[in-house]
Amino acid sequence: MAAQRFDYQRIFSKNSTVGARGTFPRPKYDFAVAYPDPTTLPLEGLAQSLKAALEREGTDLAYYPHTAGLESLRKLVAEKLARDRNMKVNADNVVLTSGSGEAISMLIQALADPGDVILAEEFFYVGTLRQMRRHDANVVGVKCDNQGIIPQELESTLKDQLAQGKKVKFLYTIPSFQNPLGWTMSLARRQQVLDISRRHGIPIFEDDCYVDLRFEGEDVTSIHSLEDTGQVIYTGSFSKILAPGMRMGYLVAPDNVLDRAMSFKGGGGVNEFAALAIEGYLRDNMYSHIDEEIRALRVKRDAMVAALGENFGGAATWEVPQGGLYVWLEMPEGVDLEAFQEQSFEEGVGYYNGAMFSPSGQGKNKARLCFGHPTAETVSQGVAELARIFQRHGLM
Amino acid sequence: MAAQRFDYQRIFSKNSTVGARGTFPRPKYDFAVAYPDPTTLPLEGLAQSLKAALEREGTDLAYYPHTAGLESLRKLVAEKLARDRNMKVNADNVVLTSGSGEAISMLIQALADPGDVILAEEFFYVGTLRQMRRHDANVVGVKCDNQGIIPQELESTLKDQLAQGKKVKFLYTIPSFQNPLGWTMSLARRQQVLDISRRHGIPIFEDDCYVDLRFEGEDVTSIHSLEDTGQVIYTGSFSKILAPGMRMGYLVAPDNVLDRAMSFKGGGGVNEFAALAIEGYLRDNMYSHIDEEIRALRVKRDAMVAALGENFGGAATWEVPQGGLYVWLEMPEGVDLEAFQEQSFEEGVGYYNGAMFSPSGQGKNKARLCFGHPTAETVSQGVAELARIFQRHGLM
Repeated sequence: MAAQRFDYQRIFSKNSTVGARGTFPRPKYDFAVAYPDPTTLPLEGLAQSLKAALEREGTDLAYYPHTAGLESLRKLVAEKLARDRNMKVNADNVVLTSGSGEAISMLIQALADPGDVILAEEFFYVGTLRQMRRHDANVVGVKCDNQGIIPQELESTLKDQLAQGKKVKFLYTIPSFQNPLGWTMSLARRQQVLDISRRHGIPIFEDDCYVDLRFEGEDVTSIHSLEDTGQVIYTGSFSKILAPGMRMGYLVAPDNVLDRAMSFKGGGGVNEFAALAIEGYLRDNMYSHIDEEIRALRVKRDAMVAALGENFGGAATWEVPQGGLYVWLEMPEGVDLEAFQEQSFEEGVGYYNGAMFSPSGQGKNKARLCFGHPTAETVSQGVAELARIFQRHGLM
Repeated sequence: MAAQRFDYQRIFSKNSTVGARGTFPRPKYDFAVAYPDPTTLPLEGLAQSLKAALEREGTDLAYYPHTAGLESLRKLVAEKLARDRNMKVNADNVVLTSGSGEAISMLIQALADPGDVILAEEFFYVGTLRQMRRHDANVVGVKCDNQGIIPQELESTLKDQLAQGKKVKFLYTIPSFQNPLGWTMSLARRQQVLDISRRHGIPIFEDDCYVDLRFEGEDVTSIHSLEDTGQVIYTGSFSKILAPGMRMGYLVAPDNVLDRAMSFKGGGGVNEFAALAIEGYLRDNMYSHIDEEIRALRVKRDAMVAALGENFGGAATWEVPQGGLYVWLEMPEGVDLEAFQEQSFEEGVGYYNGAMFSPSGQGKNKARLCFGHPTAETVSQGVAELARIFQRHGLM
């Protein structure tokens, strides 16, 4: 007779939910998950840099790492942010995190009590939305156009929430190659958004994790660089320029915010092994590697846009993103891409529907299509296949 | 005029505290922090294994890792636990974590609500004690002797807590080379502790992170192997056999417990880069590497015990541990090693006093001395120096 299983159900904490264990499904044409290009992963360079770093300072691995992460990599992050994003920061303002996901998780917990309001773009990365909800934040989306957050909408949403007596803890924004919308917020908008937030005493949490992936057009300076009172908290990541599997992001914030955020960092300082490899590799190869990756991604973006034109012309609309990993597809109102998503996966083409990214569940007629991982040829074939599937099921 | 700093103080979450940012101080003779031996770190082996793994399957780094961590490494963990700890587990029962610290943090949150009781040995690792307190657990220590937890004490503590209407969520134990006490719980005690816990319906959380470091004597089987209802949750780590900087531990638990624990895992699956290196290296070299490390540590243990005999004979007592990284020093009642700890650090010898490891703040006359990191010669010199410092200040 099998032993009766021990009953844990009665003792789980009130706060616990069922977390995800597994990998993402991978349909034949996977436009759903935002993987970067696999052909330009600098595997040999990383392995060589690691070897050199271990020879140089590997015995330090016997120590517990600095809780904020490898100092030389924090320094490199600060130098990069100064150079590329006009930010006045040094290594002490940086905490390395297990991807930017951990940075975001730490910051949410440091600032938001259950029921507190977090403002964000009307569509944003579903993983972050879920994190905010897991901590019982009240997430409110603000309407955007192709220049970014609409200032009047931000102002009225803020006023509305404050009038209801809500505590608005911060405005979360992905101003560069917004996920999933694809636009980059213009400088004028950044300034307006900052002015409104300042007037109401609301900090901004700027998630800049796609900013390096610009194919064309001019960089727009970071919101962080537009003011110097510490009102803007910043996160970035090496996941998109190296690999998600490296799990290396960073949080930049005033000292007291970092101190609070640290109390929600599980597992001590980031993996020193990965940090040594990244630091060694990026110190010499960051921009040449980014260039190579951008070239690979641009070809795929072009393939996707061309294939959309051929197969969805007249049936849907999209903007051509100047960088990043996504195209945001808009079908006519009434087309339900939420209900159809699983069917499409099963028939071989993966996408994420708009409602997944929306705090209010809007956007069923929209979808995010990621072009980072497949080859350009596969992108073209997959878009054509998606159109065939939609036609077969009467969606267009 | 400098801009006025943005005021975050008014918006921090109620739950947030000030987390630690920094490294541990390193006095000349550092017996405080439990670092492993630095000379036997298999740096070249790890670098080579990584290179081979990246050539073989590196492009998978472009995908987001399995949230439970690299499957081949979970498989290796399951095989190791079957072989070394008599555990019937497979890769699906394992979640890789950023050190065992993350596993412990996840488990605490999955089971304990604020105010719930966690039972533990009367002294245990201060980092874990702090984690439990950060989640507002009510940590109650159970008296031990040199065989482990005293069954009668466990029974009476449990009854006492339950009589007070408290919810006792689990018993946390480090049965092998207990940190800081050094003993290994005997088989008879393991069985008794399990029987008592079973009778009261309390799960056991077995932290086995030092078990590989046995210098002499016979292994005692895991508590996990003594029953098959899922009542025992298990954690282990590669930090002690490889390096803390590798940040790689694991949690083994029934499915529904792992699912709950996953909801408290920040930052997604563990670093795939480190996981690939560890899997590649340990698959072929685990036991030869452990042997080498054990040889190095035993010499240091012997040096510490000899130096204690020479310098502390008659003034203190200690047991000779059969493995692990610590000697637990007991001075006469009234000697205040808590008050003196900082002075000792300043004069060049680091230790952690007993009260740090005690849920009730007992044990000021005791101290943990770690012998893992310094050379045997430095261990001898440091113990002699500690005696001189104690004498100079009238502590002995």
